[in-house]
Amino acid sequence: MKKYCFGIDIGGTSVKCGLFQTDGKVVDKWEIPTRTEDNGSRILPDVAETIGKKIKEKNLNPEEVAGAGIGVPGPVDGEGNVTMAVNLHWGFVPLAKELSEMTGLTVKAGNDANVAALGEMWMGGAAGSSNVIMVTLGTGIGGGIIVDGKIVTGAHGAGGEIGHSHAVDDMEETCNCGNKGCLEQVASATGIARLARKKLASTDRPSVMRKAPNVSAKTVFDGVKAGDDLAIEVAEEFGEYLGKALAIFASVSDPEVFVIGGGVSKAGQVVLDYIRKYYEKYAFSSCKEAGFALAKLGNDAGIYGAAKLVLE
Amino acid sequence: MKKYCFGIDIGGTSVKCGLFQTDGKVVDKWEIPTRTEDNGSRILPDVAETIGKKIKEKNLNPEEVAGAGIGVPGPVDGEGNVTMAVNLHWGFVPLAKELSEMTGLTVKAGNDANVAALGEMWMGGAAGSSNVIMVTLGTGIGGGIIVDGKIVTGAHGAGGEIGHSHAVDDMEETCNCGNKGCLEQVASATGIARLARKKLASTDRPSVMRKAPNVSAKTVFDGVKAGDDLAIEVAEEFGEYLGKALAIFASVSDPEVFVIGGGVSKAGQVVLDYIRKYYEKYAFSSCKEAGFALAKLGNDAGIYGAAKLVLE
Repeated sequence: MKKYCFGIDIGGTSVKCGLFQTDGKVVDKWEIPTRTEDNGSRILPDVAETIGKKIKEKNLNPEEVAGAGIGVPGPVDGEGNVTMAVNLHWGFVPLAKELSEMTGLTVKAGNDANVAALGEMWMGGAAGSSNVIMVTLGTGIGGGIIVDGKIVTGAHGAGGEIGHSHAVDDMEETCNCGNKGCLEQVASATGIARLARKKLASTDRPSVMRKAPNVSAKTVFDGVKAGDDLAIEVAEEFGEYLGKALAIFASVSDPEVFVIGGGVSKAGQVVLDYIRKYYEKYAFSSCKEAGFALAKLGNDAGIYGAAKLVLE
Repeated sequence: MKKYCFGIDIGGTSVKCGLFQTDGKVVDKWEIPTRTEDNGSRILPDVAETIGKKIKEKNLNPEEVAGAGIGVPGPVDGEGNVTMAVNLHWGFVPLAKELSEMTGLTVKAGNDANVAALGEMWMGGAAGSSNVIMVTLGTGIGGGIIVDGKIVTGAHGAGGEIGHSHAVDDMEETCNCGNKGCLEQVASATGIARLARKKLASTDRPSVMRKAPNVSAKTVFDGVKAGDDLAIEVAEEFGEYLGKALAIFASVSDPEVFVIGGGVSKAGQVVLDYIRKYYEKYAFSSCKEAGFALAKLGNDAGIYGAAKLVLE
């Protein structure tokens, strides 16, 4: 009988680690530094060591440990191989195989954005649902698609790369990905700030946003809460771009709930309200009733989702 | 050891039936009429009867029959219940349960468009792939999303309802679904004809399309093959709407191959060429290499896919 599992989230500066009961209860949480020197060759031995120490410290019987799940900032194939993870200085790494040999445990690996979506499905904003689209609104836009409780990885590891779905026809600036008019150019934190700057430059109308030294997504939603007209117009634009995109995504995977996370979601319910308004306008009738929830697990979504990987 | 399975495709006027070997080889194909009177209450007994007769006729040992899969023109949930199928005069029908009781066989059911996609994945245009988006360009646009070899049904049975994804912002006509600017308003057979009529009305330039008594999608692609400028402009418009939409869908499920079927696909490779041109323009880099194939099974896709349902 398996009682425990490890959830590991490898980031560019630190490795977040969690020991969980198989029912989702956290037994322990800790971090170790990510040592990216020597092409990141120390990262996996460090992870193996910290897992080994924790098993000893907690006096666990390895028979009771279901395994270790790992989230990685890069594409991961169905066998748990990482194709490339720039921030870890990794090229191709057969992660699941190597870490399994080092620890003697079952190891499963996934892309960090996808794994975070799984975490929110398991114990977060989408708990109880098995069909979920998770949208992380940060510097860029990350996505995770869950269908029947499983992450959609896709044929090229690009399942859920919704930040780069086309959203604007007349965009002149080029996205990091090389295309023009990507969703994250208008609906990420950076994208919202871009919309706001454009709006402010287009008019002389007064706005509380003009007082901010650097206009950010927070400036916009603070403005919305203060009843600022221009801020409200920017939020409407953001809501229409994102709500329309989510409606299109729903015609593919038809989720029960959308979970909105990342820095922008810290503004709270108001963010959901603007997205849902336009989602309902554009969605196919049967999909209109999909729910919208804020992400709940914050930076811990990765360790939850990684742990869940080995319980599937 | 299971050697055989039945694939049944229930349409509004006839029920297509197939007896397959489990390796996909057709043993027999036949049709019976769909009797929609009395709220369609005779349909399932008719299906059970024809299956029973075929088992006798072919002298099959029921132990060797894996079961019967059924495709239905309407939403079907994960338990094989049909919510409603207007063309069959059905309200809620617990199809899988009832037909299983009548036949003594394992029965699985799915929506007909989704089941057709599964058929093309199994033995048709996408054979060998397990991540597929099937697009049926007929009077409307049907879709079927396959992820890891399984149909994406969705939380409300609307997985793959891509015909009603939003594609055009300035469309004034309302779609059958009640929204405006749905993909099928510009990229189905009807939609292509609409684009052509609009194009012809907008100019006095000559076109072979003007000779057609009723402009259809076939008129357009015949014109393209004859080098007609206006027809080519219409095909470009169609290609941009559909290619862009498929690129957005790819950011959700990242398919290995798109299969294009339905009446419009009878124009052949030229249809794929126009779609792919714009797909590659709009798709995220990792998704650009997805393949495009014509559907191969025609009206038999449904019985193939239905049979495959019980082999999963």
